[in-house]
Amino acid sequence: MSPLSRVTETLLAALGPEQVITDRHRLRTYECDGLAQYKVVPGLVVLARDADDVATAVAACAAGQVPFVARGSGTGLSGGALPRAEGVLIVMSQMRQIREIDAANQRAVVDPGVINLALTRATTPDGYYFAPDPSSQSVCSIGGNVAENSGGAHCLKYGFTTNHVVGLDVVTPAGERVEIGGKAPDPPGYDLLGALVGSEGTLGIVTAVTVRLTRLPQEVQTVLAGFRSTDDAGAATSAIIAAGVIPAAIEMMDALAIEAAEKAVACGYPAGAGAVLVVELDGAAADVAGELAEVLRHCEANGAFETRIAADDVERALIWKGRKSAFAAVGRISPDYLVQDGVIPRTALPQVLRQIADLAAERDVRVANVFHAGDGNLHPLVLFDDAEEGAAERAEDVAGGILELCIANGGSITGEHGVGADKARYMPKMFTAADLETMQAVRCAFDPDNISNPGKVFPTPRLCGERPGRRQGAHPLQEAGLAEVF
Amino acid sequence: MSPLSRVTETLLAALGPEQVITDRHRLRTYECDGLAQYKVVPGLVVLARDADDVATAVAACAAGQVPFVARGSGTGLSGGALPRAEGVLIVMSQMRQIREIDAANQRAVVDPGVINLALTRATTPDGYYFAPDPSSQSVCSIGGNVAENSGGAHCLKYGFTTNHVVGLDVVTPAGERVEIGGKAPDPPGYDLLGALVGSEGTLGIVTAVTVRLTRLPQEVQTVLAGFRSTDDAGAATSAIIAAGVIPAAIEMMDALAIEAAEKAVACGYPAGAGAVLVVELDGAAADVAGELAEVLRHCEANGAFETRIAADDVERALIWKGRKSAFAAVGRISPDYLVQDGVIPRTALPQVLRQIADLAAERDVRVANVFHAGDGNLHPLVLFDDAEEGAAERAEDVAGGILELCIANGGSITGEHGVGADKARYMPKMFTAADLETMQAVRCAFDPDNISNPGKVFPTPRLCGERPGRRQGAHPLQEAGLAEVF
Repeated sequence: MSPLSRVTETLLAALGPEQVITDRHRLRTYECDGLAQYKVVPGLVVLARDADDVATAVAACAAGQVPFVARGSGTGLSGGALPRAEGVLIVMSQMRQIREIDAANQRAVVDPGVINLALTRATTPDGYYFAPDPSSQSVCSIGGNVAENSGGAHCLKYGFTTNHVVGLDVVTPAGERVEIGGKAPDPPGYDLLGALVGSEGTLGIVTAVTVRLTRLPQEVQTVLAGFRSTDDAGAATSAIIAAGVIPAAIEMMDALAIEAAEKAVACGYPAGAGAVLVVELDGAAADVAGELAEVLRHCEANGAFETRIAADDVERALIWKGRKSAFAAVGRISPDYLVQDGVIPRTALPQVLRQIADLAAERDVRVANVFHAGDGNLHPLVLFDDAEEGAAERAEDVAGGILELCIANGGSITGEHGVGADKARYMPKMFTAADLETMQAVRCAFDPDNISNPGKVFPTPRLCGERPGRRQGAHPLQEAGLAEVF
Repeated sequence: MSPLSRVTETLLAALGPEQVITDRHRLRTYECDGLAQYKVVPGLVVLARDADDVATAVAACAAGQVPFVARGSGTGLSGGALPRAEGVLIVMSQMRQIREIDAANQRAVVDPGVINLALTRATTPDGYYFAPDPSSQSVCSIGGNVAENSGGAHCLKYGFTTNHVVGLDVVTPAGERVEIGGKAPDPPGYDLLGALVGSEGTLGIVTAVTVRLTRLPQEVQTVLAGFRSTDDAGAATSAIIAAGVIPAAIEMMDALAIEAAEKAVACGYPAGAGAVLVVELDGAAADVAGELAEVLRHCEANGAFETRIAADDVERALIWKGRKSAFAAVGRISPDYLVQDGVIPRTALPQVLRQIADLAAERDVRVANVFHAGDGNLHPLVLFDDAEEGAAERAEDVAGGILELCIANGGSITGEHGVGADKARYMPKMFTAADLETMQAVRCAFDPDNISNPGKVFPTPRLCGERPGRRQGAHPLQEAGLAEVF
């Protein structure tokens, strides 16, 4: 009997057939997440209803040395929830209870399957919201946000998921339940929250999340500004930040992205714009008024030919509709597309956009750019037609080339979508062997058998029996000519 | 030849006698840090001048399996820099260069020995400062702040050191140099910054710190309010926070602490006060004006019989002088004292203060209370006279009892002074065996030989060969009656 068959038998007996899926047809539902280029039918699916179920499933996997992968809503864009054919997929989406809203202390405790926007809806009556706002916030789960350390348009001012998580209940890869952090700040001992948030399922499975709630702002103002070029829009972005204004969001779209959005949702962006900026300001009314004047001034000084201020929530929603629908809208102008995710220093924006345009022209591929300009997080959309021979490969080449450009310009291979299955091969371009070695030593501390979402994040697994230590380069004692003393 | 003698020989040869102290008389200088109850003369002292020196010293220790301890300015209050008699003390205080101030990106890169206040002085001309402000900020080092995750009066609004560190250069216990984080937000891979900050030297030695700089506020207002009792002052604190005002600081002192401060620095606090609050507001001028009115209203509604607003920086400095000198001032009313550091939920303040008073009365010991009321971080000062037989033991009992009270009221055994040598024995009262096990597994990932500041933080070392796993309680498969399947 194979290890997976034994795990299947164990879990069917422990959890029953309603929670354990073995039917090949039903298993296929889970073959990919939001990155549909990669597909693997899982060996077994477990629908967890509570932390005990998760612990039971993980303990069975640990006992059988069978790999497992956790999945939330399956909206991830780096293949982080890509299943293993010989492994177990643990689906967390039935765990979706908001357990506690403690408005007085600005905290809430939620199940991992709770939808991001549902938490904001539940806390709005008390005057609070959950700040991280990925574009998928109406469907993505908070557990998934924790796994990927998700950002969103407003993370320029409010930070990523990691800045809003204060406690986690975790099932470790050994099947043990552990609490990390909690409601109170600064507990003694190691603060492992940072390591867990964004670890993409490689250190265990989160079964409860304690989050910080953010007060709803007194005032919100949204500006739409049309520019002739992305150079001008980029210069305006830099000028706004340099003036000391930190808007809640500064989003940029280029001409091709605007064209797609107009076709899809008729958002009425300024005609003939080579780029638009969406700038949102929030906070105390007095502050916002002053910041609004600054933003308009810097837009106009940098060539904005039209600026509009949303008069009310309806106009604000229309401005955002163009931006938020941009990824899907690209379907109107191209049969297929890849979404890339990279980061560059804000000041390098104009230069990198020109390099992307050159790269795209060279390979005869169109690239639409939609991005969080304020923090230099690019989301180039690489367009192609899969029916055309070799087009997908050319698109992949360009998408990969864009990451190389990000690295060469002092940036990063991912801003908010994660490394997952998709980008593990790029990790050695960003990190030294010693850096990766240190991360993997931590992974071994949690998961010595490499069964917790293996194959994600790290290009090559580390044999966990090894002791940490120098792997390459001269030892400082050798440099000092003293290596032979011991 | 003992392992330490071999390390001594190696390091004398590599670094020379100017940087390697072996003279017993000079070694004695380093026998304790700010917690003078514990004293150990180190076996060897290395004065590091750069990261290479640190790597050389650590590599020699690793090769010889000799324990090492890093020391900054030696102001720590939990014995975190207590040396080992058979080990090496690596002194970081000569590494005190501010390497870069990048005001445009609100970042600075500093050596670990840079004094906390020196960084603020260096960045003030550009309109910035370094927000963490421990009372020792004129002498403590930023490396020490990182090791202990130091707070300060203003961490209510601005957070602890961990909220202001974005990158670290670290020498791992194997002697390897690693970079963690950096200037850009949200790099891929594990975010180990949180684990490193506050790890009290048990995961390696920090050789460079990249910090976030905070903009100097437009306006600062400081209020001194006199109350009849700590109950009233506590109620005012809760009312201010509940109203949604987050002051930069809310500090409380009780009658005994006020008496000591008056004797030492004649700060002129309201006569006859059973407690005073120092409330500081900062930010945009318009916001501060509104918040000031709220604070005054809540103080008066909760029984403040006198409130004063500092008219200028001189008056502000006088108000703070009383608070900041309180620890030392206690020397005016008692020959000896212990400084305790615990945390309780803010709302439990009045109740815990009564319990502390009862405990002190029972053991015939006086306790002065000075604390960061806004975030529930207590600093009781337990007074005694070492010349009196048994007095030190009674004081220790009361100090320990206060921690038990903190835990019983849902708090923590340390707010900002760290666990160090002093509080390791209390860790099992706050954490389950599984929680501690997970932390120690991470420690083993960095330091399998237990040579990096051993004996601190954890009550008992873990044997690092063990695999992580369930140590106690029923296995979930046992609970399900299925433990025998594998």
